[in-house]
Amino acid sequence: PSGKMHLGHKLVVDQLIWYQTHGAKIYLCVADLESHITRDLSFKEAREFANDEYLTNYQALGLDLEECHVYFQSQSDAVQKLAYTLGKKVNFSELRAIYGFKNENNVSQIFYPMIDVADILRPQLKDFEGPTPTVVPVGVDQDPHLRLARDVADRFSKEYGFNPPSSTYSRLISGLTGDKMSSSEPKSAIFLTDSFEEVRNKVNNAVTGGRNTIEEQKEKGGMPDECTIYSMYVYHFLRDDEELLKLREACESGEIVCGECKQKAFKLLKEFLSEHKKKREKIGEITEEILSR
Amino acid sequence: PSGKMHLGHKLVVDQLIWYQTHGAKIYLCVADLESHITRDLSFKEAREFANDEYLTNYQALGLDLEECHVYFQSQSDAVQKLAYTLGKKVNFSELRAIYGFKNENNVSQIFYPMIDVADILRPQLKDFEGPTPTVVPVGVDQDPHLRLARDVADRFSKEYGFNPPSSTYSRLISGLTGDKMSSSEPKSAIFLTDSFEEVRNKVNNAVTGGRNTIEEQKEKGGMPDECTIYSMYVYHFLRDDEELLKLREACESGEIVCGECKQKAFKLLKEFLSEHKKKREKIGEITEEILSR
Repeated sequence: PSGKMHLGHKLVVDQLIWYQTHGAKIYLCVADLESHITRDLSFKEAREFANDEYLTNYQALGLDLEECHVYFQSQSDAVQKLAYTLGKKVNFSELRAIYGFKNENNVSQIFYPMIDVADILRPQLKDFEGPTPTVVPVGVDQDPHLRLARDVADRFSKEYGFNPPSSTYSRLISGLTGDKMSSSEPKSAIFLTDSFEEVRNKVNNAVTGGRNTIEEQKEKGGMPDECTIYSMYVYHFLRDDEELLKLREACESGEIVCGECKQKAFKLLKEFLSEHKKKREKIGEITEEILSR
Repeated sequence: PSGKMHLGHKLVVDQLIWYQTHGAKIYLCVADLESHITRDLSFKEAREFANDEYLTNYQALGLDLEECHVYFQSQSDAVQKLAYTLGKKVNFSELRAIYGFKNENNVSQIFYPMIDVADILRPQLKDFEGPTPTVVPVGVDQDPHLRLARDVADRFSKEYGFNPPSSTYSRLISGLTGDKMSSSEPKSAIFLTDSFEEVRNKVNNAVTGGRNTIEEQKEKGGMPDECTIYSMYVYHFLRDDEELLKLREACESGEIVCGECKQKAFKLLKEFLSEHKKKREKIGEITEEILSR
């Protein structure tokens, strides 16, 4: 993820945790080079940001970082070298076709995708796990990178024996404003470090599938599939399908109205975030510890 | 230098030694990333090659490596990071104009010049010497890189306070075949690790400024300015201008002929190379020592 961590990002972490509990070895890359190149953060800022926004949150969400291979892109000799090696068989035309690069793009941006691919293929180097099946959980918008990684893996299969990396795709959850949930659009997302006040405001202003008036809603019922609050229940707060179905029916039948539903969502969010905050506070500075491994 | 080290390369080392004896701090970069990207050597091969061809020869020629800051590009965190930072203000158009890149060029080649520039500017980072006047001794064909480095230094002068890097230019000495002295044209160059037999053959076959027949030579005299052996005397073996003038006059007056002159050159080369070999043999494996610093 880039930018502050929000509920949308949590889906990928939930998947990582699921893989971890099933015995998978997790490689976790802190993309500080990406932050530096595309978001203009200094390496120091990128490191602090990674500590506060990613590592601490991941750990608090339940990912056991002790059991992960966590590393910073800018610190990884293996990734750097692999990127230069892989980049020998990828030309400018190809990256331009995928990323829309123009002559005006700077050369760090142009080269960066190779770092990305190196991150994906590195676990299969012989100094790490060796050639092995891998899965990369990403948002569906990341598909082009994964396709590039698979192509490149194939070009180097003789030298490295790479298995083409598999991937699972998370849906992009719509943000509270109805558009994409995005760090760069603060109103669209619930950040894991938002205050209750901020969350309350965002929930109150969220786009729902409700009708123009309460009367109309009671008569025609709400439209849960167009409701950003409902999708929050689906993806985050109602793990039980029965309960979810009940909520859906209550909405569609006009039995509950948006205010009530939002209040319940806020309550659930508040519980989750307050629990999350407590867990965060127990976690010290992780970055230093990781860099000293 | 790329490829095996020959007499032409020695000129740059002689300059480095001169700077060192005048109190300059020398930064010496082993361009293993370049070897990997442009000459297809593995990192291991590049390392061994650097040890045998550069470091050992440099030390044997009289450069005190203990007093230099020697590093491998692929191992230098500072160079890697600086390259990505500098690359943010250099676009594809610009590098294409300088290096003739095409859409078919691979992205490692396209990004490599930024590593080169980072090598040049790194000594001026605050973790090293800080902003300070620097001189880069190069062959005259390297001028475009230095111009790029100066331009880039300027773009980052606010953030880093870089002094634009100065440079001194060595003439490209013509090879024994009359063309450029080049590692990729073994007959054109005397390599520092050539056997006496190889040197004898190369000198015997060298292009000279002699006439078609000895009679014609005695009558019209030789043409030292067109003679590859004479340039070897100029740049390597006759430090004394008086002696050089004498040789020139003897050639132009037809007093000596090419065979005689070549024999003398071979004798001088043999002495130099045998001395050099002795010095090399006293030097152990340097690379490991440097990497462990």
